[in-house]
Amino acid sequence: MEGVLREFFSQAKLRAAKLSPSYLSLWDTLEKSTVGGKRVRPGILMTAYHHLGGTNTEAAARVGAAFELLHTALIIHDDVIDLDFMRRGHENVSGTYRALAQTAGQTPESARHRGMSAGIIAGDLALIGAFRMLDTVDTDQQTRLRLAAILDDAVFASAAGELIDVDFSFSLGAPQIPEILDMERLKTAVYSFEAPLQAGAVLAGADDDAVATLGDFGRDTGIAYQLVDDLLGVFGKESATGKSNLSDLREGKRTVLIAHAAQGESWEELSHLIGCPDLTAEEADRARELLISSGARDYARTLAEEYADRARSHLDCPSIPGPLRQVLERIVAGAVNRGR
Amino acid sequence: MEGVLREFFSQAKLRAAKLSPSYLSLWDTLEKSTVGGKRVRPGILMTAYHHLGGTNTEAAARVGAAFELLHTALIIHDDVIDLDFMRRGHENVSGTYRALAQTAGQTPESARHRGMSAGIIAGDLALIGAFRMLDTVDTDQQTRLRLAAILDDAVFASAAGELIDVDFSFSLGAPQIPEILDMERLKTAVYSFEAPLQAGAVLAGADDDAVATLGDFGRDTGIAYQLVDDLLGVFGKESATGKSNLSDLREGKRTVLIAHAAQGESWEELSHLIGCPDLTAEEADRARELLISSGARDYARTLAEEYADRARSHLDCPSIPGPLRQVLERIVAGAVNRGR
Repeated sequence: MEGVLREFFSQAKLRAAKLSPSYLSLWDTLEKSTVGGKRVRPGILMTAYHHLGGTNTEAAARVGAAFELLHTALIIHDDVIDLDFMRRGHENVSGTYRALAQTAGQTPESARHRGMSAGIIAGDLALIGAFRMLDTVDTDQQTRLRLAAILDDAVFASAAGELIDVDFSFSLGAPQIPEILDMERLKTAVYSFEAPLQAGAVLAGADDDAVATLGDFGRDTGIAYQLVDDLLGVFGKESATGKSNLSDLREGKRTVLIAHAAQGESWEELSHLIGCPDLTAEEADRARELLISSGARDYARTLAEEYADRARSHLDCPSIPGPLRQVLERIVAGAVNRGR
Repeated sequence: MEGVLREFFSQAKLRAAKLSPSYLSLWDTLEKSTVGGKRVRPGILMTAYHHLGGTNTEAAARVGAAFELLHTALIIHDDVIDLDFMRRGHENVSGTYRALAQTAGQTPESARHRGMSAGIIAGDLALIGAFRMLDTVDTDQQTRLRLAAILDDAVFASAAGELIDVDFSFSLGAPQIPEILDMERLKTAVYSFEAPLQAGAVLAGADDDAVATLGDFGRDTGIAYQLVDDLLGVFGKESATGKSNLSDLREGKRTVLIAHAAQGESWEELSHLIGCPDLTAEEADRARELLISSGARDYARTLAEEYADRARSHLDCPSIPGPLRQVLERIVAGAVNRGR
């Protein structure tokens, strides 16, 4: 998979260099933004592929690379929409271009706009790259079309999730728990778990039962993963997660955790803390105490476990071979036990 | 072509309605943004296709629709980057969502951000739609891959052009004429003329000579078209063009016209007028006088004629049938004689 991505960027950079040096730099920045990811999507795709009898590792790596490029595109555009200039502790594409503009003496607002413009263009290129990558997969035409439809469904769902998430941030009051679960499923679970598992199965020529089961498993695993992610965003140790455990609280991110707390008595105090851009470490500790005492943390944890159990229950199906089932059970266990 | 687009949006809206009412609205807004375009790209694509012996009108309409969706995506993201909220005299996608947010009582800055977020998501959907549309074209796999490569080249070029254009707006001083011509070729001429003509030829099964010739013709025609567009942006009658003839001057748009004037003596006075967001009608008249007296208008007009001549000269080639040549000559004449 790494080799496929390297080859993709190397070819794109050769083409870009012929057009302009600045365009080559954009491609270089885009490539760097793919480094350091955990390759979750290609990993589970290839797991499903091999355990369902697939033997063309090169083909699976190409489909995996398509999902990695899709992921790259979605996080770049998500960061533009969220006005985020950092990702995984480094400047993202927008952040890189904002910093260049600042160094060149532009005003902060102008530099920010410069960064966002570069992010929009780079995200478009990665998005197209994902679909073009499928054209290079050595498979029959019918399978290729099914893979393209799965990738398309993934983009379609995550655009819906992104839109709903944007709507949340502009609407008054906290959204309800079912709305948040729906948004997280659409925005993340489909393209990160459901679609890559299904793509791996389709490429391996698995039967419809296996493809449907992996989709169900992936969706529920993805929701469990996201619930735990939201918990780690508030309660995780920065040394373990590599992410700030203050930024979700400062930004007032709409999560199940917060939606649960909003129904309780602590909300009057909590609502003054959550969403403050300059929340102190002490205030964050107080917010955590309230999220624990109100039962919100336990609620979110239990819900994550329930989704994980539901994910596991789908696997009790003859079309999923034993060894694949074992790996998938490890994946769902890993998803809910992260950061413990 | 219109039927293909209607079918595309109707299917997408059926899918969107299952996910959320707000997502259905976004698709509806996206569809509305495609109405009122001149269908330049599908038009020339189908002209080339039929004159080169193609008979599958449905297939050509689908490739045409792919280019129309690409055009939709590029102008939506271009408008986000330029902070433009209007297009063709109506609110664009960002403008529609900004207005909704304003009506809902959000601050101007928050409403603007809401609009831009919706624009980024909608542009992504149209971009993917363009590539997916090619999967529905009834043709052999080799031709489909060639069409996808042409569409890919078009996106690749226009992303480079957009980046260079963004660079212009952030750099001090006026860019030179060759740089502007290069930017306009990449940003517009490739995807609007070169690529659709080539796609029509490839779909018709034309020989490589014809495909290459149409590419050369399209590129030069596209540059001529853009030069005239820039002239109309300053000297056109609003009643004829349907566009403001003040906004390019107010925005300080980098064009060949301006780059030529920047080399002359009138620049000292002109540079104080061009780029003023609150330029009056009288000041705009003065800027036009200076652009005429400095010779900038004549220079740009002559250059457009030269590119049109160069475009015509490519057609003197045995692989282009006489009737196609006549239509293409009318197209290039139409491109340079607009607004006269």
